[in-house]
Amino acid sequence: MSNVGSLEELRARLAAFAAERDWEQFHSPKNLAMALAAEAGELLEHFQWLTEDESIALPEATRKEVALEIADVLLFLVRLADRLGIDPLEAATHKLEVNARKYPVDKSRGRATKYDRL
Amino acid sequence: MSNVGSLEELRARLAAFAAERDWEQFHSPKNLAMALAAEAGELLEHFQWLTEDESIALPEATRKEVALEIADVLLFLVRLADRLGIDPLEAATHKLEVNARKYPVDKSRGRATKYDRL
Amino acid sequence: MSNVGSLEELRARLAAFAAERDWEQFHSPKNLAMALAAEAGELLEHFQWLTEDESIALPEATRKEVALEIADVLLFLVRLADRLGIDPLEAATHKLEVNARKYPVDKSRGRATKYDRL
Amino acid sequence: MSNVGSLEELRARLAAFAAERDWEQFHSPKNLAMALAAEAGELLEHFQWLTEDESIALPEATRKEVALEIADVLLFLVRLADRLGIDPLEAATHKLEVNARKYPVDKSRGRATKYDRL
Repeated sequence: MSNVGSLEELRARLAAFAAERDWEQFHSPKNLAMALAAEAGELLEHFQWLTEDESIALPEATRKEVALEIADVLLFLVRLADRLGIDPLEAATHKLEVNARKYPVDKSRGRATKYDRL
Repeated sequence: MSNVGSLEELRARLAAFAAERDWEQFHSPKNLAMALAAEAGELLEHFQWLTEDESIALPEATRKEVALEIADVLLFLVRLADRLGIDPLEAATHKLEVNARKYPVDKSRGRATKYDRL
Repeated sequence: MSNVGSLEELRARLAAFAAERDWEQFHSPKNLAMALAAEAGELLEHFQWLTEDESIALPEATRKEVALEIADVLLFLVRLADRLGIDPLEAATHKLEVNARKYPVDKSRGRATKYDRL
Repeated sequence: MSNVGSLEELRARLAAFAAERDWEQFHSPKNLAMALAAEAGELLEHFQWLTEDESIALPEATRKEVALEIADVLLFLVRLADRLGIDPLEAATHKLEVNARKYPVDKSRGRATKYDRL
């Protein structure tokens, strides 16, 4: 896969992809959020009857299918963010800093408790 | 936001974040797929009663909330991919090439028809 | 469809269906919640590129597919509730009464605003 | 809960609830499918960090919260079906018969394999 660039390059390619096909009319944030959630549902489907241990050791064929679902989620996420003028990497970096404050290491070590109950 | 790097840097930070908190035990792909889908649901919630036109012109407060949901989806997506040894950017680039073949410009222009019905 | 009974009859049939196939082992509430969400995602997929007006006037073939997705959501919902000892009809009736208090007619008429912002 | 009736009574109450508040304008099938999926996401959130064993033995407070999410999913499901002229109980009964043919007892006993791979 020689042609993998940055998230910014992916954004630009997706915008061109939609423009060439005159798909901006379908790509309202509302519709893109739906498409993203539908893909997240397809991702779930691969895991719903697996144990957690099975889910970490997928057969190679399943892993490839899961990679395609992950791709679909990312494509719609990048496209949605672009339509709203949001930089997803910046937003995620910011959110990770927020999470670091919400979940201090000493309080959250080994616990899946939500921050508001820590 | 001076500290924004690449998706690869985000991956590494998330892995460190989980390791420091001893959270690998919760981060099975099964659980991460659930968390991702739950965040996709929160994203939906912002748009469910809006018209498509309203969804492209969000009030600034809503846009900021949506940016945080987009961040959450991306964080879980990157973490899930990491646990499965998948490069999400490579997967998305590959999928976009597949989509370009599935949806040739001349057949799909201005149409939201699924590829298997084109 | 002569054989349609109550939600309680559906619950009993589903329990028998799972028992005959020795599927209780897969039917943890965690897994059933995932399956339900995956079906909700399939439901979304039918509507994601439609306008709201189109969504109320589905072609008959699409309406039949949507009916099957609605069925799948209901089947997993009834099964999930059964595994947790929850009566879904009782829960929904109770929640509707809660909603009636949260959304008084005079304050919520013609507005999609969430109750905590009314 | 003396006031629990049938799914048909719930449908009628929900229709009246929406009519009184002039909410039909928001209740397109597209929007209702989104609301349903958002509630399915909230359901997921309760289970995402639990083991399967923990998910079957919820603390009472969590079980009550889960009951309310199940209620929300059912309310939107019934409302969506009503808007499309679909009887959800009939659809589910029909789908269960389809599933019985797809998953014959002898082939599917003790296996979570999808029907097209049995």
